[in-house]
Amino acid sequence: MQPPLQQFLTRCHEEFVADRSGAVADYIPELSKADPAAFGVSLATIDGYVYEVGDSAKPFTIQSISKAFVFALALETQGAERVEAAIGVEPSGEAFNSIRLNADNKPFNPMVNAGAIACSGLIHGAEGDGAFERIRNMLSRLAGRELDVDEAVFASERATGDRNRAIAWLLRNHSVIHGDVDAVLDVYFRQCSVLVTARDLAIMAATLANSGVNPVTGEHILAPYAVARTLSLMTTSGMYDYAGEWVYRVGIPAKSGVGGGIVAALPAQLGLGTFSPPLDDHGNSVRGLKVCEALSSRFDLHVLNRSGDVRSCIIADYDVAGPSSRRGRQPQKQKILELRQDNIRVIELVGALTFATVDYVSRQLADKQPKAQFLILDLRRVPSITLAAARLLGETLAGLANDGVTTILAGLEAKSPLFEAIRAWTAEVARLRQFPLLDDAIEWAEDQVIYRYGGFMRLTEMTHLSEQALLAELTPEEIAEIARLGATRSYLAGQRIIVADEPAASLFFLQSGLVSVKLPSGVRLASLVPGMAFGEMALIEQARSADVWADTAVECLELPVIAFNSFRKNHPEGGQRIMCNLAKLLAQRLILSNIKVDRLSAY
Amino acid sequence: MQPPLQQFLTRCHEEFVADRSGAVADYIPELSKADPAAFGVSLATIDGYVYEVGDSAKPFTIQSISKAFVFALALETQGAERVEAAIGVEPSGEAFNSIRLNADNKPFNPMVNAGAIACSGLIHGAEGDGAFERIRNMLSRLAGRELDVDEAVFASERATGDRNRAIAWLLRNHSVIHGDVDAVLDVYFRQCSVLVTARDLAIMAATLANSGVNPVTGEHILAPYAVARTLSLMTTSGMYDYAGEWVYRVGIPAKSGVGGGIVAALPAQLGLGTFSPPLDDHGNSVRGLKVCEALSSRFDLHVLNRSGDVRSCIIADYDVAGPSSRRGRQPQKQKILELRQDNIRVIELVGALTFATVDYVSRQLADKQPKAQFLILDLRRVPSITLAAARLLGETLAGLANDGVTTILAGLEAKSPLFEAIRAWTAEVARLRQFPLLDDAIEWAEDQVIYRYGGFMRLTEMTHLSEQALLAELTPEEIAEIARLGATRSYLAGQRIIVADEPAASLFFLQSGLVSVKLPSGVRLASLVPGMAFGEMALIEQARSADVWADTAVECLELPVIAFNSFRKNHPEGGQRIMCNLAKLLAQRLILSNIKVDRLSAY
Repeated sequence: MQPPLQQFLTRCHEEFVADRSGAVADYIPELSKADPAAFGVSLATIDGYVYEVGDSAKPFTIQSISKAFVFALALETQGAERVEAAIGVEPSGEAFNSIRLNADNKPFNPMVNAGAIACSGLIHGAEGDGAFERIRNMLSRLAGRELDVDEAVFASERATGDRNRAIAWLLRNHSVIHGDVDAVLDVYFRQCSVLVTARDLAIMAATLANSGVNPVTGEHILAPYAVARTLSLMTTSGMYDYAGEWVYRVGIPAKSGVGGGIVAALPAQLGLGTFSPPLDDHGNSVRGLKVCEALSSRFDLHVLNRSGDVRSCIIADYDVAGPSSRRGRQPQKQKILELRQDNIRVIELVGALTFATVDYVSRQLADKQPKAQFLILDLRRVPSITLAAARLLGETLAGLANDGVTTILAGLEAKSPLFEAIRAWTAEVARLRQFPLLDDAIEWAEDQVIYRYGGFMRLTEMTHLSEQALLAELTPEEIAEIARLGATRSYLAGQRIIVADEPAASLFFLQSGLVSVKLPSGVRLASLVPGMAFGEMALIEQARSADVWADTAVECLELPVIAFNSFRKNHPEGGQRIMCNLAKLLAQRLILSNIKVDRLSAY
Repeated sequence: MQPPLQQFLTRCHEEFVADRSGAVADYIPELSKADPAAFGVSLATIDGYVYEVGDSAKPFTIQSISKAFVFALALETQGAERVEAAIGVEPSGEAFNSIRLNADNKPFNPMVNAGAIACSGLIHGAEGDGAFERIRNMLSRLAGRELDVDEAVFASERATGDRNRAIAWLLRNHSVIHGDVDAVLDVYFRQCSVLVTARDLAIMAATLANSGVNPVTGEHILAPYAVARTLSLMTTSGMYDYAGEWVYRVGIPAKSGVGGGIVAALPAQLGLGTFSPPLDDHGNSVRGLKVCEALSSRFDLHVLNRSGDVRSCIIADYDVAGPSSRRGRQPQKQKILELRQDNIRVIELVGALTFATVDYVSRQLADKQPKAQFLILDLRRVPSITLAAARLLGETLAGLANDGVTTILAGLEAKSPLFEAIRAWTAEVARLRQFPLLDDAIEWAEDQVIYRYGGFMRLTEMTHLSEQALLAELTPEEIAEIARLGATRSYLAGQRIIVADEPAASLFFLQSGLVSVKLPSGVRLASLVPGMAFGEMALIEQARSADVWADTAVECLELPVIAFNSFRKNHPEGGQRIMCNLAKLLAQRLILSNIKVDRLSAY
């Protein structure tokens, strides 16, 4: 099956290629040579997939589309204050090449020639030579490949650019640009002559749609401020004197160029690039407009047509009770945790965190009286967080810290952009901790609760066999017989006691120290304390299903299965009791596992 | 802890209440009586929570804010074509009360007086008397409570409304309105005199932000088309002659009124309502503007500043192998399923489905060769789907049907809006099925696979006790002894065999028919076929943990625990074997449950 969007673009192309209306731009001799039949469409998604149809790899000059990106570059490199002082942001209601300035003698906005030349002037003025190279470099990074200049178009633009020359001199007259007017104009003419394809434009647009991160290369190129403001101007002034209608009818921020290109960016959704040289009376590509309109109307993609649901950001919200970390605990510690089971609250989140979702989370936390002393936010399924959301989350965590709640972030690395974004707003929250694994976060919080309520570890002291859950309710004689049949073993920290896939020929009663049950991949299945058995599945299985490692110095009793079989011949009651205990332990684990399944499935 | 957004609004209120600049509107005597010190702010979220601070419950007249909502009502009731033929959508560049019309002798847009009177005229003209009642009714539903009219303001508006009278006559001259001009003006003056509070405005705005569904009452009031177009006009023309700057700097669609109100709606995020009578030179509430600006800049809430990640919409994607439905299967059927384990693919989705997320899902489905003959989409965690997403999903499912894949939707009711939205685009997909529970969907697909590959159900034939998994490897004598100790029981379909919480005094071997293990809440834990035991936890537990119901006529052998205890006295080997079998069955279930946990935790 072809993805339906590929099918849609193919049908659009088939249908609109037949439209021969419009005329190729001819105000520059070089542009009039464009092939009116050429027609390419490309759509790039914010996860970096690129759909293409027709002449999507055919190069043409970017022309006025460069205005949007150079404005963004100016905001990034010159600072918003300087750029916004030099150029207005209101629609002009005039033609794109009008020489008229606004009441403050500034260009109306950066999408008309006067404003775009002012932008090129700002970049040139600030750093002199190399301005065009910086522009070309940024356009290349936006497209994800090295872009070149069409020197013939550049020469043609320069030779016939008298109107732009007049605009530039007028701008210098009003001190909007400074210095060498011809050098600024050369930057401007060159930036208009950069060669792009419909595919390039789609990726450049998708970078705007993806908050400034190129979704194909992953490079972070523009800050959200520059992206939102560039999209604002594309919305109000991107399609020449057609802005109100464009917002109302199509509702996708866009910019067109006389080379036949259109770039359109729908935030958080997609970037579109089209190429077809014949233009309508407004100067917009006829077929390109049709693609934008078809996409918007068929899929109702107006930028203001959004719905959302904040509740689905919480996938689980529970107090840690029975199903705790994979660390086994001795009975008295387990009892402390059971008594304090509302002390640790876990909230598992999913999806990119936004202002609205974090506000929702903050209300879930504010709702109840804070009984939980530990809050674990599991962010494993959270790919990103907006600035707004990070700020709001920071304030929420600060509020909780004030109430004495310790917050732990799980499911993210200390060096991840996500953690850095959150920490940037929670510097004052001294108690913020982070663990890559939820299980480790829960274990840490459990340790805190146990220590707080008087638990302590009794690892080095030898436990007696009668404390073993697997041997519960056996008579002292039966336990003595088990002890006689088994052999005491000692291991050093770091030694492997049981090897996965080897024959399961014995079981072990842990008497002092800690062991971990791990998959060969390193994933920890459980960690055990004295009083627990391991390798006990040997009673029902032929082979070991996991490794067991000594975490500390370990003492244990190893009981061969052969010895156990002779024990149960001589002590049938005891043998049945042990099997019954094993079934009980398995049933307990099954209940815990099922609770976890239900909890994870409940949302 | 107070939610941080409440703290923020409180701080805003404290800070801006000190600003005494601006002047109360005085063009109508009644308005000049407003209290310049009054200041209320309310913010409503799309999950229907309402923040409030200050005079948020103080009523004032809605004035020009009504224009936005009456335009939406006109689109809904008169149809977009008629409304858009009568009124333009371009910013006017003129004052709100200008008498100038555009080049086609139509009002520039519905946010200036001329356009708003034309809207009232459309609603009045189409249905005559009762036009205002319809407007008041819609405004009331948007606010979630009955709204009244300030009769004194209405009388004052009418007495001093000569300029509007002139506009209305000019509109009739150009055939934009028809019939009784005074009646149309009465509708207009009355709609401007509707009394609202900042809280009302916040909820009305949140309804726009929530795709036309009032998030407090849940009522669906406006279609997405009307919502997006109304927000477009608020974006380009909502704040009088300040539009370009407003989009650029604040970027939240808004509309203000001379009564001192501002309504601002950020799609999929929030609705804001403010009230403070002193106005600036543009006619916008001074303190209200400050709140909008502070909210936008502190939380970076520009409407075009969006980021998202489509990948997080898939929370699990797996072939049904070991952990299948909760329906137990006889060994030969289980074997068929194990051999065909890539025949059923389950994709669990989370969050509101949008164009971009469904496109991503469609590519995951197009990616591989379709080995799976059954695709189950679990939509339990999907609260809504956009029109675009429903359309794209419909096309995806049609493409899969073409490839011979049967799609089943799980986690939604047949009458849910979600299912109706998807089915609207998949009418041609005959194979689309729906189940409220994922487990039932998996069971249905498993049945199909079993039937397709030669399995059949052998329910009515009696199975022998030697086929019982719990009695595996017992000697014929031991099995005969079990049969002698037990008693054969028959049940009719619908009878309850075991009652939760009662003492667990016996276990049952199912010999013919089907039973279901259910929680008292009705949730099915398992369904069992002949050859399986139930109530077997009586061997290790004191009380029943769930109900067991006969799904069909049932024959089984009931074995009292007392009888089992005498059996294991006399047959210690057999007793140990049964306990060992029980431990094995529990271990198998534990493995399946742990796989489910890992699968659900992996995303």
